[in-house]
Amino acid sequence: MTTYYEKIEIVGVSEKSYEDAIQTAVKGAKDKYKELRWFEVIEFRGGISDSGNVQFQVVLKIAVVN
Amino acid sequence: MTTYYEKIEIVGVSEKSYEDAIQTAVKGAKDKYKELRWFEVIEFRGGISDSGNVQFQVVLKIAVVN
Amino acid sequence: MTTYYEKIEIVGVSEKSYEDAIQTAVKGAKDKYKELRWFEVIEFRGGISDSGNVQFQVVLKIAVVN
Amino acid sequence: MTTYYEKIEIVGVSEKSYEDAIQTAVKGAKDKYKELRWFEVIEFRGGISDSGNVQFQVVLKIAVVN
Amino acid sequence: MTTYYEKIEIVGVSEKSYEDAIQTAVKGAKDKYKELRWFEVIEFRGGISDSGNVQFQVVLKIAVVN
Amino acid sequence: MTTYYEKIEIVGVSEKSYEDAIQTAVKGAKDKYKELRWFEVIEFRGGISDSGNVQFQVVLKIAVVN
Amino acid sequence: MTTYYEKIEIVGVSEKSYEDAIQTAVKGAKDKYKELRWFEVIEFRGGISDSGNVQFQVVLKIAVVN
Amino acid sequence: MTTYYEKIEIVGVSEKSYEDAIQTAVKGAKDKYKELRWFEVIEFRGGISDSGNVQFQVVLKIAVVN
Amino acid sequence: MTTYYEKIEIVGVSEKSYEDAIQTAVKGAKDKYKELRWFEVIEFRGGISDSGNVQFQVVLKIAVVN
Amino acid sequence: MTTYYEKIEIVGVSEKSYEDAIQTAVKGAKDKYKELRWFEVIEFRGGISDSGNVQFQVVLKIAVVN
Amino acid sequence: MTTYYEKIEIVGVSEKSYEDAIQTAVKGAKDKYKELRWFEVIEFRGGISDSGNVQFQVVLKIAVVN
Amino acid sequence: MTTYYEKIEIVGVSEKSYEDAIQTAVKGAKDKYKELRWFEVIEFRGGISDSGNVQFQVVLKIAVVN
Repeated sequence: MTTYYEKIEIVGVSEKSYEDAIQTAVKGAKDKYKELRWFEVIEFRGGISDSGNVQFQVVLKIAVVN
Repeated sequence: MTTYYEKIEIVGVSEKSYEDAIQTAVKGAKDKYKELRWFEVIEFRGGISDSGNVQFQVVLKIAVVN
Repeated sequence: MTTYYEKIEIVGVSEKSYEDAIQTAVKGAKDKYKELRWFEVIEFRGGISDSGNVQFQVVLKIAVVN
Repeated sequence: MTTYYEKIEIVGVSEKSYEDAIQTAVKGAKDKYKELRWFEVIEFRGGISDSGNVQFQVVLKIAVVN
Repeated sequence: MTTYYEKIEIVGVSEKSYEDAIQTAVKGAKDKYKELRWFEVIEFRGGISDSGNVQFQVVLKIAVVN
Repeated sequence: MTTYYEKIEIVGVSEKSYEDAIQTAVKGAKDKYKELRWFEVIEFRGGISDSGNVQFQVVLKIAVVN
Repeated sequence: MTTYYEKIEIVGVSEKSYEDAIQTAVKGAKDKYKELRWFEVIEFRGGISDSGNVQFQVVLKIAVVN
Repeated sequence: MTTYYEKIEIVGVSEKSYEDAIQTAVKGAKDKYKELRWFEVIEFRGGISDSGNVQFQVVLKIAVVN
Repeated sequence: MTTYYEKIEIVGVSEKSYEDAIQTAVKGAKDKYKELRWFEVIEFRGGISDSGNVQFQVVLKIAVVN
Repeated sequence: MTTYYEKIEIVGVSEKSYEDAIQTAVKGAKDKYKELRWFEVIEFRGGISDSGNVQFQVVLKIAVVN
Repeated sequence: MTTYYEKIEIVGVSEKSYEDAIQTAVKGAKDKYKELRWFEVIEFRGGISDSGNVQFQVVLKIAVVN
Repeated sequence: MTTYYEKIEIVGVSEKSYEDAIQTAVKGAKDKYKELRWFEVIEFRGGISDSGNVQFQVVLKIAVVN
């Protein structure tokens, strides 16, 4: 049984949806950390372009096994 | 006019999206409580499989008429 | 460089998704304020119809240049 | 000595005052649960009619002995 | 169906009660905004005169239809 | 101009209303501290008797001039 | 896979420790709900007797499978 | 005595300090609103240039008399 | 019936456990205040020595009868 | 080793800066309490004069050894 | 004097107590980071086995000197 | 466009001001991480020497591009 985890705070960005922004963030973390277990979303934000398009930005805390 | 509600805290899970997880939670509550009125999402979380797939988990407070 | 913004709190509603509710809110604000820059979602809520259909409601703080 | 309680979240509504809304909520809970002990108010909200009349809405957590 | 609201933060003051301070705030907002729908109380404060009299101050977020 | 205050946390209790509980708390503080200036309510709670009567309890932070 | 949970808020009391108060709360919930899965502690409180003995009180949110 | 205020959320930016960013925000608001009374800082943030210079950004709620 | 309390914020430290740190804090307060009634834990912290030993630190709000 | 502290909530005011308001608050507390150890800032606020000058107000929790 | 720290978020798990879970987390961090200084507990959670046994889980922020 | 960031929590210390403590923290992070983008201040704290001198301590979350 794992008894020690670290929790990393990461940001994902997507033009499509918050779920896609989460997938982007999880893929970014998977390239760097060995094993990912669970996450909490701690912020939902966004940017707005001059033409009014929305960019979805999500901040996650993600638990990793080192 | 209804002047008394109870608020129940429930969790819904989906492989697809947070909206689908909310629908799952609302259907689960509707099987058990008579009338549902409104809800607030109080947590957005998720699990990550070994292959990196994301499971969306949502915690709601839902107002019911007993 | 802009050194002064105002932040407006707005609500968007959609039958489809939270992303669509955000688009609705951003369009509503764009009709009234000159330039929109970024937003934070501060509440995810919803209504439930008698038949169990979910209406997604989102509360945003949105930064505008006056 | 009681060593186990449950805490129920309830909503009370009144045209008069928050104290009256609390009494409404407590009476609603007393019809259903055996013994009520103490409560915390966690939200004070309200509705506004077209003519500007205010309806007071209060959300309580109430401790019950099952 | 209305799908866009703005939420305005206002302060009401009364020598009598918080409910009266809310009525004061709602009347102040009604003079300026077209339609008011619902509100949340976000702060209950007060001032104390030299003789110990209490002035009730309430901060509301109020949803308006523009 | 006063440039230094202390803030004291106090509890007031009343069978009548939260406003009366605040008055009770302010009177209790006035017996002990020289000058009271302003307060914030940080908790609204209550007790419920066996017969269902409500006792209103309020927690204040109150600014005093020493 | 379970996709619907309810979260119940409960209070446990112990003269010994918070861990013992949690065990008391979990046992109380297990007598009433079918399957318990996980919990979060949301408040650590206590009572103090006239002789200065401490009673540990813990408030949990506990996830149950109905 | 004023019994109705509005609270506006504004952002000020400065290369020098948070106090300067607050002054910038207050001046921006004074150009637009008649009377300003008090403010609360609700966020302290900043940007970092490629060379490591810090830009101070402050979010205020400011009370205005309309 | 007591209708006025003060709440004092105190810190207790122990090498053994949080329960022991609470006892230390309660004893420290009992030497100074007449009657103690109840407490809430508002922070659990700790120090770590060079050799990795943990010191438990707890911050309480404690209600006293003056 | 000190194992018991009290934490006092104080307010400092300055026309110059928040750091100066903190120094004012710390000096005010040092006149009254024996030993001060550490503090947390819990609120940054301010007043605005008719001419637009800003007064910086800071609320601290400060740990004292009695 | 150290003027720069990093704060790492870690999770510790124990079948015995929260203090033991903290020791587990601190030992896990000590294997990886040079010097640990202090920590704050930010979450107390737990798992419940089918037979009702409780597993204590604790989330810490821990300050390290790099 | 960058679509993945990590957010690191860091502490900076200064005898002069919070702005200087932020600069210290940002310089410490720049020695270790490639690109820094923005930060949020999440705590303002301080130490007090025996002679009453204040040491400013600031906790930041800082976004980095790995």
